Amino acid sequence: MFLNNAWYVACMPAEIDDKPLGRTVCKQPIVFYRGGDGVVAALEDFCPHRGAPLSLGRVIEGKLVCGYHGLEMGCDGKTIAMPGQRVRGFAPIRSYPVVERHGFVWVWPGDAAQANAALIPDCAWADNPDWAYGGGLFHIGCDYRLMVDNLMDLTHETYVHATSIGQKEIDDTPSVTKTEGDQVTTSRFMANITPPPFWKLALRGNHLPDDQSVDRWQICHFSPPSQVMIEVGVALAGQGGYHADAKVKASSVVVDFITPESDTSIWYFWGMARNFNARDKALTAAIRDGQGKIFSEDLEMLERQQQNLLAWPERALLKLNIDAGGVQARRVLDRLIAAERVGAPASPVSAS
Amino acid sequence: MFLNNAWYVACMPAEIDDKPLGRTVCKQPIVFYRGGDGVVAALEDFCPHRGAPLSLGRVIEGKLVCGYHGLEMGCDGKTIAMPGQRVRGFAPIRSYPVVERHGFVWVWPGDAAQANAALIPDCAWADNPDWAYGGGLFHIGCDYRLMVDNLMDLTHETYVHATSIGQKEIDDTPSVTKTEGDQVTTSRFMANITPPPFWKLALRGNHLPDDQSVDRWQICHFSPPSQVMIEVGVALAGQGGYHADAKVKASSVVVDFITPESDTSIWYFWGMARNFNARDKALTAAIRDGQGKIFSEDLEMLERQQQNLLAWPERALLKLNIDAGGVQARRVLDRLIAAERVGAPASPVSAS
Amino acid sequence: MFLNNAWYVACMPAEIDDKPLGRTVCKQPIVFYRGGDGVVAALEDFCPHRGAPLSLGRVIEGKLVCGYHGLEMGCDGKTIAMPGQRVRGFAPIRSYPVVERHGFVWVWPGDAAQANAALIPDCAWADNPDWAYGGGLFHIGCDYRLMVDNLMDLTHETYVHATSIGQKEIDDTPSVTKTEGDQVTTSRFMANITPPPFWKLALRGNHLPDDQSVDRWQICHFSPPSQVMIEVGVALAGQGGYHADAKVKASSVVVDFITPESDTSIWYFWGMARNFNARDKALTAAIRDGQGKIFSEDLEMLERQQQNLLAWPERALLKLNIDAGGVQARRVLDRLIAAERVGAPASPVSAS
Repeated sequence: MFLNNAWYVACMPAEIDDKPLGRTVCKQPIVFYRGGDGVVAALEDFCPHRGAPLSLGRVIEGKLVCGYHGLEMGCDGKTIAMPGQRVRGFAPIRSYPVVERHGFVWVWPGDAAQANAALIPDCAWADNPDWAYGGGLFHIGCDYRLMVDNLMDLTHETYVHATSIGQKEIDDTPSVTKTEGDQVTTSRFMANITPPPFWKLALRGNHLPDDQSVDRWQICHFSPPSQVMIEVGVALAGQGGYHADAKVKASSVVVDFITPESDTSIWYFWGMARNFNARDKALTAAIRDGQGKIFSEDLEMLERQQQNLLAWPERALLKLNIDAGGVQARRVLDRLIAAERVGAPASPVSAS
Repeated sequence: MFLNNAWYVACMPAEIDDKPLGRTVCKQPIVFYRGGDGVVAALEDFCPHRGAPLSLGRVIEGKLVCGYHGLEMGCDGKTIAMPGQRVRGFAPIRSYPVVERHGFVWVWPGDAAQANAALIPDCAWADNPDWAYGGGLFHIGCDYRLMVDNLMDLTHETYVHATSIGQKEIDDTPSVTKTEGDQVTTSRFMANITPPPFWKLALRGNHLPDDQSVDRWQICHFSPPSQVMIEVGVALAGQGGYHADAKVKASSVVVDFITPESDTSIWYFWGMARNFNARDKALTAAIRDGQGKIFSEDLEMLERQQQNLLAWPERALLKLNIDAGGVQARRVLDRLIAAERVGAPASPVSAS
Repeated sequence: MFLNNAWYVACMPAEIDDKPLGRTVCKQPIVFYRGGDGVVAALEDFCPHRGAPLSLGRVIEGKLVCGYHGLEMGCDGKTIAMPGQRVRGFAPIRSYPVVERHGFVWVWPGDAAQANAALIPDCAWADNPDWAYGGGLFHIGCDYRLMVDNLMDLTHETYVHATSIGQKEIDDTPSVTKTEGDQVTTSRFMANITPPPFWKLALRGNHLPDDQSVDRWQICHFSPPSQVMIEVGVALAGQGGYHADAKVKASSVVVDFITPESDTSIWYFWGMARNFNARDKALTAAIRDGQGKIFSEDLEMLERQQQNLLAWPERALLKLNIDAGGVQARRVLDRLIAAERVGAPASPVSAS
């Protein structure tokens, strides 16, 4: 139940700087590496000679050399050479559209003819000195849609993240969800509340007092195939909230790229981009550490939830108003996946 | 192949004192916790909202609060409240009859209408200052009936527990097995033998000499669904053996409550109750440590036996006279399980 | 896809000196032990009483005593005795032809009537003071034929073992493969090359200079069911190479006995026999350590290759000239296995 004709984050650039990386995306084992001139390439992780994983090989002069018997593979999936062999008749292996952009490596696991790099989502913070970004990667044993649900219903913060970003007012404040085209947005605005510990840290990081009431907002943007950008922030109370002047607020974007590995496991790329005090690297590190700790609190819950759903497959779940974000996101996904399956004319997934 | 309409030990009370406990009994994942006034409750470990395990939640003012989105569950399986939601229409989850008694938490995984707390087995030692009890819990990868077999044929002590309670005379002394109703008893009486190390410890613990010949007995009582109480002891030789005066013997009851988790795994609650020198806590600890070490010697054997039986499913096992206890216990179980399956009128399992 | 009517190495003698050993050969769980007079015996690892693994038992006066209830098993699979039981009617368990020879324990998992100890392969180095032998055992998660492929195509040395025995000249020098009866031989001769590190060690070990050019050879001999003997060596260049006088060369035999455990796992007995400086035990140890390190480099590759082949079962592999050894070995195996399956008249596998 994946969308195949879409861009997914495959890895962070540093993961392929030293050697090839084998990673399964949408059930497809793929090797990612830097070919000629350091340009990223992605191929089936299967040597056409004897089936060895090419990710155990090395890159030599831009060619991926199989670590078993030295077959030299080109970035297009065609064998370039092999010691003592004529390789012209070797069947090619599949190559995948792949692009390095915005600090990520993006792969298109579906029909290559439909891949268009212009569809890679914008990342406002990338290559912009007014922004800072820090993040990480988790491997989690759950369906990617459970993570989308998680991120589109932030009432869970009150319970899962009670000591950092959770607070009762999240529960008490209804959210509003709407779908426009393929985008789903869930918003919640809380006025005149006490900032929880994580936001006190952020306020101090922006040289603002942390002992005053604030207005707080959470605006979750889902885009297919499985990304969730969350505008979050606090402003000193009564100064305009979300629209307040930058000098009286601390705000950022929670960045979530969710890449299915299998039906019940994901590679979860999480991070936070902020546009205040962007040059303070110690603050970037402190926020990343804090976010990493907070997000790790979701892991056991998601994996145990997945196990429960596998154990009780026949049981229907509730769809409450707080679940509207996840529910509408699934509706978008179901529609796009159905269209992809009937081979509908290309209306490829754009992410912004 | 479990009896469902029966009381099983689910956990020890201390396991739920601080937080809810998730435990699978007879293939049913259940959350155990202390609700209002600390009274134990048991529910399906599945939040009706999104399927999260309720055992990851917390108990607040007697209500089990889901750790994901804060749904408040009552001890009857009906949702009490949820932030910002009307919950009247929420489908209830299953609640299980559960009783705390005799130092254990008991659960009835079958038809709740048939559950009767009067059927919980007596435990003579509980709440009785003349008795002391110590025990523990093992998780073992075997069919619960293999553990019943183990406990109903103590000739294995000679081989598995050669350095503690085993001795050749166990093999040399025939046992007698008889079934009365649903109870199976296997008895063995050995006269004028040398006590093995564990019993020397017990004799010293009762201020008796450990260098004299003794009479020794083992009387194994199986009761459905899967408990085995074993009267064991030694008396100075020739003083009446099992019937000797308490002053010349050391005797106790080996307590075994076996709770199936799956077809091939169990929660094994083991312990020893004694009615001599009951106030000596150091002795209680020494006996528990010794028993724990002895019983852990069975684990590898039981798990490897289970693997062998799975590998050779077609192979019939022998049923020798020493196996009579286990064989007759299975006959009782087969009869009761068959009756339960045809929905026979309630003749529920009593354990004493 | 195993040949059953064949001798396989089951274990090294030291593995059964102290206690019985349970090991699965060709999917058959077998217990190996020393019976009367220390003679090796092999039986199904299944006690006829209650299915316990006999390998958890002990050998007492040549009898294998089950560690659960004391059944005494004879080397022929017939129960000898059991405490308090008449055992005459006990069904026998299967006994396997087994022979200790040449420093290994050999088992015949197929039709016992066809087992002939004369078919056990010769091991020239065994019991010969002019030879020294050192080796080890690995458990690897791959089809045994992938290991045969590995050993019959040594071009992988250039890539997998680049820092020890690999060198580019292996790739550059074509090999010649031929099949005679059930034997497959792949040979490669390299003239006037620089010896790689492992062979420098061997040259020094034979008191020869390690800074001169050498001629090098690799002659791989496959014999069914799954053994590969590789004559390897270097001689100072231009002195006759493979046929050079012993004084100017360092040569040895790489010994590989591959025993299938399951369809996707093996017990791999590897070693090296040499006939130079045979009394130098430190050299034997140094060579064994070096070989162990080198061979361990193959493990991840073989296991990951196996996983890839399971993931892409429909994909055909290439059969290049370098693969001829493995390809022809499989042809021999296919023919013998097919013959075995139709119950062809015994033309049992001889290994030399």
